[in-house]
Amino acid sequence: MQLGLVGLGKMGFNMRERLREGGHEVVGYDPRPEVTDVPTLAALAEALDAPRVVWVMVPSGPITHDTITALAEELSEGDLVIDGGNSRYTEDGPHAKLLGKKGITFIDAGVSGGVWGLTEGYGLMVGGSDADVERAMPIFDTLRPPGPREDGFVHAGPVGAGHYAKMVHNGIEYGLMMAYAEGYELLAAEELITDTQAVIQAWSNGTVVRSWLQQLLAKALKEDPEFGEISGYTEDSGEGRWTVEEAISHRVPMPVIAASLFARFASRQEDSPAMKAVSALRNQFGGHAVKRVSESG
Amino acid sequence: MQLGLVGLGKMGFNMRERLREGGHEVVGYDPRPEVTDVPTLAALAEALDAPRVVWVMVPSGPITHDTITALAEELSEGDLVIDGGNSRYTEDGPHAKLLGKKGITFIDAGVSGGVWGLTEGYGLMVGGSDADVERAMPIFDTLRPPGPREDGFVHAGPVGAGHYAKMVHNGIEYGLMMAYAEGYELLAAEELITDTQAVIQAWSNGTVVRSWLQQLLAKALKEDPEFGEISGYTEDSGEGRWTVEEAISHRVPMPVIAASLFARFASRQEDSPAMKAVSALRNQFGGHAVKRVSESG
Amino acid sequence: MQLGLVGLGKMGFNMRERLREGGHEVVGYDPRPEVTDVPTLAALAEALDAPRVVWVMVPSGPITHDTITALAEELSEGDLVIDGGNSRYTEDGPHAKLLGKKGITFIDAGVSGGVWGLTEGYGLMVGGSDADVERAMPIFDTLRPPGPREDGFVHAGPVGAGHYAKMVHNGIEYGLMMAYAEGYELLAAEELITDTQAVIQAWSNGTVVRSWLQQLLAKALKEDPEFGEISGYTEDSGEGRWTVEEAISHRVPMPVIAASLFARFASRQEDSPAMKAVSALRNQFGGHAVKRVSESG
Amino acid sequence: MQLGLVGLGKMGFNMRERLREGGHEVVGYDPRPEVTDVPTLAALAEALDAPRVVWVMVPSGPITHDTITALAEELSEGDLVIDGGNSRYTEDGPHAKLLGKKGITFIDAGVSGGVWGLTEGYGLMVGGSDADVERAMPIFDTLRPPGPREDGFVHAGPVGAGHYAKMVHNGIEYGLMMAYAEGYELLAAEELITDTQAVIQAWSNGTVVRSWLQQLLAKALKEDPEFGEISGYTEDSGEGRWTVEEAISHRVPMPVIAASLFARFASRQEDSPAMKAVSALRNQFGGHAVKRVSESG
Repeated sequence: MQLGLVGLGKMGFNMRERLREGGHEVVGYDPRPEVTDVPTLAALAEALDAPRVVWVMVPSGPITHDTITALAEELSEGDLVIDGGNSRYTEDGPHAKLLGKKGITFIDAGVSGGVWGLTEGYGLMVGGSDADVERAMPIFDTLRPPGPREDGFVHAGPVGAGHYAKMVHNGIEYGLMMAYAEGYELLAAEELITDTQAVIQAWSNGTVVRSWLQQLLAKALKEDPEFGEISGYTEDSGEGRWTVEEAISHRVPMPVIAASLFARFASRQEDSPAMKAVSALRNQFGGHAVKRVSESG
Repeated sequence: MQLGLVGLGKMGFNMRERLREGGHEVVGYDPRPEVTDVPTLAALAEALDAPRVVWVMVPSGPITHDTITALAEELSEGDLVIDGGNSRYTEDGPHAKLLGKKGITFIDAGVSGGVWGLTEGYGLMVGGSDADVERAMPIFDTLRPPGPREDGFVHAGPVGAGHYAKMVHNGIEYGLMMAYAEGYELLAAEELITDTQAVIQAWSNGTVVRSWLQQLLAKALKEDPEFGEISGYTEDSGEGRWTVEEAISHRVPMPVIAASLFARFASRQEDSPAMKAVSALRNQFGGHAVKRVSESG
Repeated sequence: MQLGLVGLGKMGFNMRERLREGGHEVVGYDPRPEVTDVPTLAALAEALDAPRVVWVMVPSGPITHDTITALAEELSEGDLVIDGGNSRYTEDGPHAKLLGKKGITFIDAGVSGGVWGLTEGYGLMVGGSDADVERAMPIFDTLRPPGPREDGFVHAGPVGAGHYAKMVHNGIEYGLMMAYAEGYELLAAEELITDTQAVIQAWSNGTVVRSWLQQLLAKALKEDPEFGEISGYTEDSGEGRWTVEEAISHRVPMPVIAASLFARFASRQEDSPAMKAVSALRNQFGGHAVKRVSESG
Repeated sequence: MQLGLVGLGKMGFNMRERLREGGHEVVGYDPRPEVTDVPTLAALAEALDAPRVVWVMVPSGPITHDTITALAEELSEGDLVIDGGNSRYTEDGPHAKLLGKKGITFIDAGVSGGVWGLTEGYGLMVGGSDADVERAMPIFDTLRPPGPREDGFVHAGPVGAGHYAKMVHNGIEYGLMMAYAEGYELLAAEELITDTQAVIQAWSNGTVVRSWLQQLLAKALKEDPEFGEISGYTEDSGEGRWTVEEAISHRVPMPVIAASLFARFASRQEDSPAMKAVSALRNQFGGHAVKRVSESG
C-alpha cells in the first residue's frame, strides 16, 4: 500500500527500505535533502492519494509534537497518522485529540529492534481503534518479523497502549541488561574463570538465560575483550524513567528496573555527591580518612 | 562411551535417556529400585570397565558430599568423577582433593536446561584439567544442544570454574526473571493494556527483550491468565544467595540480582517483620493508624 | 500576633494550642462545630484585623486547593496565606499566582514533628519572600522547638522551597525507617540475641545510630514486643513517591529511598503479581513445584 | 578496678584516658614505645593482679586472633579477656574455646562512638556469661555514656552476641548514612533550595529525621560546603558486608542496607565493568554511541 513516512534517520531510513522491499509505495520526508523524497510536508501530503496513512518516525518530545501539529495542517479528514517514535504514552491522547478535530485518526506504535530491524523485522506494539489498526495492517505485516503475527505484533489496546507496552518493554530491557552486566562483572573478577567471553558465549543454547541480549553480549566481548575501549558512561532515553514513574503511580514495587535506572544515572556522574556525603560523615564520627579530591586517580 | 550415572531424579533420569539415545552405554544407580540399573554403588563400579567415568547427579550439599565420599571407596586410580549437580564451587576443591588421594580425578559441571534438556540439550559449564575434559567430551557433546560446541559448552577453567559459571548463570537468571516479572506486573496494572499475555507473546520476535524466559512467560500466561492458580511464594535453591555472597567477596556492586533474591525471601514471609517495625514507627511519631493483625485480609 | 488557622485536625488542633500558649491570638476554623472558633471562612476573615495572616492546615491535594481558592475570595490585598500542609511543591507556584491576582502573598511551610510537636515544637521549612517570612516569624518562632532558630527553622528559598525541603525530609525518613527495620528484623531472627528491644534501647546514647527514630523504635518494642499486634501493611502519604520522582527528574541515583518506597507498596499487596510470574517461570523451565493458591497459609 | 588494655590506637588510647579519668587503674600495652605502659604482653600480665581482666582493642582479623592467642599463653585460669574490636561474631566462639582450654573466660564487646567516645562515652553491646559481664561492669559503666545503663549498654546474649549486635548497628549505620546522602544530593540538585546546609541544620530539632548523623552532616557541610574537598571514594570496614551476608543466611530481605553497601563498592571503581557491558549492549542493538575511554573526563 501507499505510505507517507516522516523522519528518515537511523530508524526511519531502514524502515523505508524494508517497506519498499515488501512492495509498498513509500514517500519519505526528511529535512535533509540527501535522503528525502519530497521537499516539504505539504509536498508529502500532495504526493499521497487520500485517504492517506502517514507514519511519523522522529525523536520523541517536541519534535514529534511539532511534526504532528504540522501534519494536522497538511492532512485531511479520513487520513491516519501513526506515531512510531518513542513518545511517552501520555502524549498520545492529546495528539489523537488534536488530529481528531480535523477528522484525522491516530495510532501509536512502539517499535523495537534497533539497527537489526531492517533485516530481522521490528517488534511492533500498537494502540488505536480496530478499524485503524486493520487499515494499517499491511504496513505492520511488512515491518514485523516473519512468522506468526502474534509473535512480533500486538494490538495492545486503545490509543496510548502501544507506547505503554513499548515503554514497559524498554524498562524490562534495562533490568535484563543490568542482570547480565552484574553477572559479567562478577565472572570477570573471578580468577577461576579463564575466559569470560567463552562462558557467556556458551549460554547461547540450552541454558535458561539464553536470549538475544546474551548473544549480543558475547558478540560485544568478542569484539572488545574486557571492554577496554568502552566507557561505562551510559545514557538513558526516557522509557526507563517513565517506567519507574508509572510503577510509582500504580504502586507497583519495581526494585530491579529502578536499580538499573539509577546505575545509569550514577554512570554519568564524575563523582557521587551522595558518596561524598557518606565519606564526610565517616570522617566526622570515626576520624576515618577521606580521599581528598587531589588524590583521585 | 561407557558412563556410570549416580542419581536418576528429574535431571539424571532424563540425562540417561538422552545419553542412551546418543549411543552411550549408561549404567545408572539410584536408591529407588524402580529406576536403578544396579542395586548398589559397588555394583555400579563393578559393572563399569576401568578406567571409569562416573557422573554424579544428586542434590547439592550433604548428599553430593556423601556420594562422592562413597565413590572414593568404590572407584580406583585413573577413574574420573564428574559432579553435575548444583554444588557450591567451594566444595569442588575439597572433593577433588578427597578423590585425588586415591588417584581419582574430578570435573565439576554446571548443567542448565531443566526439564527441557532431554529434547533440547543441556547448557554445560565445566571445570577441570584439559585431559579430563577431553576424556569426557563425548558425553558433553551428547548432552549439550546441537550446533557449534562453543554455543552450549564451555571449559570455564580449573576445578571449581564450572560450578562458578553455573552459579553466576543462575544469579543472572534471578535478575532476568524479576525484570520480566516487574514489567508484567505493571502491564497487568494498567487499564490501557487489554491483553497482557498478547503483549508479552508479541515480544517473541524482533524485540530487544526476546528470550527463552520471555517465551516461557508468554506460555505460562496462556495456561493461566493472571496467574490465578499460582501463589507468589518462591523458593530459592542456593545459587542466588551464593552469587550475592561472591559479589560481596569481590566487592562487585550487584543491586539487581540482590534485589531479586530479597524479593524471593519476602515472598515467603507471612508478614514482614521489617514492615511491622516501619508501621509501628509511623504510629509512634505520627499517630498514623496501624493495621492490626486482626484486620488483615 | 493574630493568626487565622484553617483546619483543626490532629496537627492544626495542637498547633492552635501551642500558639495560644505562646501568647498569640488564634482564630481557628474547621467544618466540625465542636472544634471551630468561627462558623465560616467568611467569619474567619471578618474576625481578623487586616492585613491578615492565615495558616492553612488541611490535607494536601484537592482540599488544600479548594481552601486556598476559597480564601482568595474572602481575603484582601496585603493579606498572607501560609500552606502548612504536605502539599506537593509543584502546587505552590499556582497557589501563589492565584492569590497574587488579588494582592495576597503566599508562604509554603513544611512542618515536621507529628503528635510530638505540641510539646517539643515543630521542625519548620518555609519558602517565600524575605518580607513575608519576616512578617510571620513570630508564629514560626513559637511553633518551632526552643533553642537556636537555625536548628529548627529554615527559610529554604522562594515559594516552593519549603515543601521541597519537607518532601526530601520525608523521603529520607522512609530510608531511615527501613534501615532500622531491616536491622531489627535481622536481630530478631538471630538466636544469639536474647533481647532485641534491649539492644535497640542501648543505642540511645553514645552510638553512631542514635536518633529520635531509634528511640521511638525502642519505645514501640517495649509496648509491643515482636510487634505481635501490628500488621506490616504500611501506607505512604505521597512525599516518598514525589521524592523518587524528583530524583528521576534530576537524574539523582536514589536506591535506598526507592527501595524503602517499594517495600511499602509490597506491604499492601495480598500477594505479589511479580512473584507469581517468577514462580510460574520456575515451574515452566525447571518443573519446580509452585505453591497453589489453595495451599497458601 | 584494674584493667589490662592491649592496643592503644585511635580507639584504645582514648579509652585508656576515659577509664583513668573514671578512677580505674589501666595498664596499657602497644608495640609503639611512645604510647605503651609496659614493654611486652608478658610484662602486662605480670603487672596485673590475678585474676586479671584484659581488654583487647586491636584491628579485627589476624591481629586480633594473634593477640588473643598470645594472651592465652601469658594469662592464667580465672582471667577474663574482652575483645572490644570489630571482630566478626563468628570468631568469638573459637576465641572463647581457645581461651577456655586454659580456664580463661571471654567477652565480646561491640563498641560504638568513634572519636567522640572519649568525651561522650561509648555505646556498648556485649556477649558473654552473666558472671563475666557482672565482673567487668565497672569498666563498662565508665566507658558507656552517663545516664541510665540500658540506654548505652546491653548484655545482648552469650558469647558472640555483642559483636553481632555491633555488626547490625553498623549495617544500619550504612543505611542511615545513605538515606541522608541521597536526600542531600537531591536538595543540592534543586535550584529552589538556596542553602542546602541550612536545610539540613534546621532538622536538628523537632523533625522526624533528627539524629546524631544528621547533625554531623550539617557540621560537615558547614566545614566544607558542597564537599568540594572530599572524594566520594568510600571504604567499608567489614560489618556492612557481614550484615548482608547474615541477612542472606537468615533469609531476611535487606534491600536498603545492601544498596548502601553496593554504593560503597561502586564508589571505589574507576569505571564500572557492569556499565561498560550495558553501554556495549546498547551499542550492539541500537547503534547508540558509546563513550570511548579517551573521551572520559
